[in-house]
Amino acid sequence: MKPVCLVIGAGAGIGGNVGRRFAREGYHAVLARRSNQEGLDNLVQSIRGEDGEASGFLVNAVKENSIENLITQTETEIGPIDVMVFNLGAQTGNVSLEETTLKTFELGWRLATLSLFRAASALIPLMENRGKGTILVTSSTAAMRGNPLQHSHAAAMGGRRMLCQSLHAEYASCGIHLAHIIVDGMVDAPDTLGRILGSERFQTLRESRGLERDGLLLPEEVAETYFHLAHQHRSAWTHEIDLRPFSETPWWNS
Amino acid sequence: MKPVCLVIGAGAGIGGNVGRRFAREGYHAVLARRSNQEGLDNLVQSIRGEDGEASGFLVNAVKENSIENLITQTETEIGPIDVMVFNLGAQTGNVSLEETTLKTFELGWRLATLSLFRAASALIPLMENRGKGTILVTSSTAAMRGNPLQHSHAAAMGGRRMLCQSLHAEYASCGIHLAHIIVDGMVDAPDTLGRILGSERFQTLRESRGLERDGLLLPEEVAETYFHLAHQHRSAWTHEIDLRPFSETPWWNS
Amino acid sequence: MKPVCLVIGAGAGIGGNVGRRFAREGYHAVLARRSNQEGLDNLVQSIRGEDGEASGFLVNAVKENSIENLITQTETEIGPIDVMVFNLGAQTGNVSLEETTLKTFELGWRLATLSLFRAASALIPLMENRGKGTILVTSSTAAMRGNPLQHSHAAAMGGRRMLCQSLHAEYASCGIHLAHIIVDGMVDAPDTLGRILGSERFQTLRESRGLERDGLLLPEEVAETYFHLAHQHRSAWTHEIDLRPFSETPWWNS
Amino acid sequence: MKPVCLVIGAGAGIGGNVGRRFAREGYHAVLARRSNQEGLDNLVQSIRGEDGEASGFLVNAVKENSIENLITQTETEIGPIDVMVFNLGAQTGNVSLEETTLKTFELGWRLATLSLFRAASALIPLMENRGKGTILVTSSTAAMRGNPLQHSHAAAMGGRRMLCQSLHAEYASCGIHLAHIIVDGMVDAPDTLGRILGSERFQTLRESRGLERDGLLLPEEVAETYFHLAHQHRSAWTHEIDLRPFSETPWWNS
Repeated sequence: MKPVCLVIGAGAGIGGNVGRRFAREGYHAVLARRSNQEGLDNLVQSIRGEDGEASGFLVNAVKENSIENLITQTETEIGPIDVMVFNLGAQTGNVSLEETTLKTFELGWRLATLSLFRAASALIPLMENRGKGTILVTSSTAAMRGNPLQHSHAAAMGGRRMLCQSLHAEYASCGIHLAHIIVDGMVDAPDTLGRILGSERFQTLRESRGLERDGLLLPEEVAETYFHLAHQHRSAWTHEIDLRPFSETPWWNS
Repeated sequence: MKPVCLVIGAGAGIGGNVGRRFAREGYHAVLARRSNQEGLDNLVQSIRGEDGEASGFLVNAVKENSIENLITQTETEIGPIDVMVFNLGAQTGNVSLEETTLKTFELGWRLATLSLFRAASALIPLMENRGKGTILVTSSTAAMRGNPLQHSHAAAMGGRRMLCQSLHAEYASCGIHLAHIIVDGMVDAPDTLGRILGSERFQTLRESRGLERDGLLLPEEVAETYFHLAHQHRSAWTHEIDLRPFSETPWWNS
Repeated sequence: MKPVCLVIGAGAGIGGNVGRRFAREGYHAVLARRSNQEGLDNLVQSIRGEDGEASGFLVNAVKENSIENLITQTETEIGPIDVMVFNLGAQTGNVSLEETTLKTFELGWRLATLSLFRAASALIPLMENRGKGTILVTSSTAAMRGNPLQHSHAAAMGGRRMLCQSLHAEYASCGIHLAHIIVDGMVDAPDTLGRILGSERFQTLRESRGLERDGLLLPEEVAETYFHLAHQHRSAWTHEIDLRPFSETPWWNS
Repeated sequence: MKPVCLVIGAGAGIGGNVGRRFAREGYHAVLARRSNQEGLDNLVQSIRGEDGEASGFLVNAVKENSIENLITQTETEIGPIDVMVFNLGAQTGNVSLEETTLKTFELGWRLATLSLFRAASALIPLMENRGKGTILVTSSTAAMRGNPLQHSHAAAMGGRRMLCQSLHAEYASCGIHLAHIIVDGMVDAPDTLGRILGSERFQTLRESRGLERDGLLLPEEVAETYFHLAHQHRSAWTHEIDLRPFSETPWWNS
């Protein structure tokens, strides 16, 4: 039986590419995203086309028991989850305080913080019994400092980071490796950045960032580091790491 | 008309003492706490006994519109709020991940993060119109690093810190001073620490911390720094400050 | 006998104003600066003109034994040092790596890091015997993050911050209060900023920052917070605090 | 011609193992250490025995022009340096402030801060001309927070970290990748930890840390992450990363 890599938030950006990377190395990639059955099917087919194993699920993470059921179903029907890639974003664009409704503020928290807590609560006891497991959490600049017009996002990601530290403090010595990955720049992802900008502006941005598009974070390259982190020996684990394009100013300078 | 200092979370620890300190300097202290009418009345009477002005309200901050109504009522019936001291804690003691229910996790967020967002949303537009105002937010070690058995608290306070930075980034230049105050140690507060420990253990702790009790944070001394922060000239504002007893190891060393 | 406040780096900016503030409250201000006897004399006379006590010394801090002798002389001839304000800067302007000579790099360290170590080594044993004392260290954005063209300054201030934490960790419980004060913006100081910019550009800058000049850090207002820190009760000490004008973007957002 | 990996500080711990790791992948490993010709020869022979290329140099890094000459000689005689691993430590054990001499304090800085500045000044212009290059800097907990009895080490490593950020800010966009690697735990290194503890206590420590020795950082595993960092695509570079054994409490919790 292949080891299992569960990706929560598996679009065409980091999530999907990480899933593909693990599948190439012999993992069964279990790919969950909120919507777009066609995109999901294409991703699954594309991985299978490379002789990888993959399964896809549409899951609305904020719905009660959705993540919990996904984890149970994966463990029962596919196999023990070795690696969980938690890749749900909570970016809702720039919104002034007055326009940030209670609902928006709460949604940010439900996506970025509560859903990680729920996933951890469902999966960590299983990993603890097995004495091992890896959880890779995608995070963002907003986990490190607040920005204007980012009230919901900053609060949500700040909560995510401290939750990651709290989980790591309790479970690292049980053999569970949790890494908090600060993606500090724009990702070349058609599903998220592309949708926010529209396809024309997205294309212009890509080109303005260099012939090789590498002024944006290329998700297939990001996936290399996710894969490396999941395979660090337990004598030399990373808990926090940042990733950004060479041409991007780090958050502490911008 | 006296300037107004609204304290949300005004027990016998930091909140009540900060209210008293401002009242002594000519503020009307508006004191809100969740329960204990008698304790609230005693505090109000004690401030009035020193020729200060004070009003007290029992307010359940997590209830819909509770904070919003408190702010409206204060502005209408007492006067424009110059200083808001946001002093709600969210410490629920050490709880393992498996025992941290969704409800507990959510309550931490409602108390520590959402309620600050609600208070800011209600008050900041008023302060913005007036071109000035001060918001002092009590925070804790858990805003700086996660600890085992503190999943709810760490996530909640991490969210609080990033929200504070986000609000500050948007409103400081409008004349609104927001300070994030990291209380990094145990407070000599009968209402909170005293209740958690029980009166006997609390007394033993106080004594073990030195004849002068000053191995705990004395809330009347903490209040001095709150008062100072609220009166910094706008050419030299503090956004983040830590406070701890001389004998306490800072969070980064412990 | 009056308590003594020794200011190392007492120009017309933060240092001189802090000295004046302490003198007003009954301290003997001992003012040391590298050069400009006339400026020093004026400062001393001006404090005396307000019925304050002050003494002035020209001291080249990087010279062997200079700080050590100043401390000994102050203790012997004036009185025990209650408060040391360590206010030496090490800003040498923007310089590319290739133009940063070994000498410049070393000078930054000698001013910002080594001289604080020397002052601490000379003074802390005396304070330790007395079971009390306060050391206020002026620091800068460069202690928190590196900037391009600031190689010498960043390395020097980064060293200063970690040294402050190390000293605090060892001596706080002995009653010695050390605070690291992050001055995160330009100070309205004719001796330093004024000299760097030239008087015309300095005046233009001041005016562009608002009618009340308060878009720059006004050193007399900064002095209020220094004074407050030195008088915090030992049950509620601050180790790290930031200061910036209301209109300045904090370092983590700029 | 093989690409060149220069390791400054190439003992039997991280440095030597990183050199070996790169040699296995086709690099010429240039190994420099201060003393122990025999240990150095053994390392070189051992790499050659695995069909790798390696050269060894005894270099006293604090001596004038030593690092500069090593870089020049390597570039001239062996080839352009693709990767520099800067692995000089500056740990001098726990020393009280009163016992920390000026000489010790200065030596810490010369080893940890100045020598990195010298290496960067010599190498970065060459890398800048080539439009690429990688610098991997080993760092430690002391770069993140000060500890008692660590005055020299903390000041030196704090300076190192800010220098790394400053260099990164100036040169990342030129294609030079600098990573600051926080080694947050004890390394299973006979040359350093083993020498400090003595062989018997070292062996006891190793065993107490688990049958597989993996409660210490195993340098051959650390080397995997160094190698990964050097091969990240420039669209997804890491500037800062931590490494510690699964069973080690992170610095922010201890």
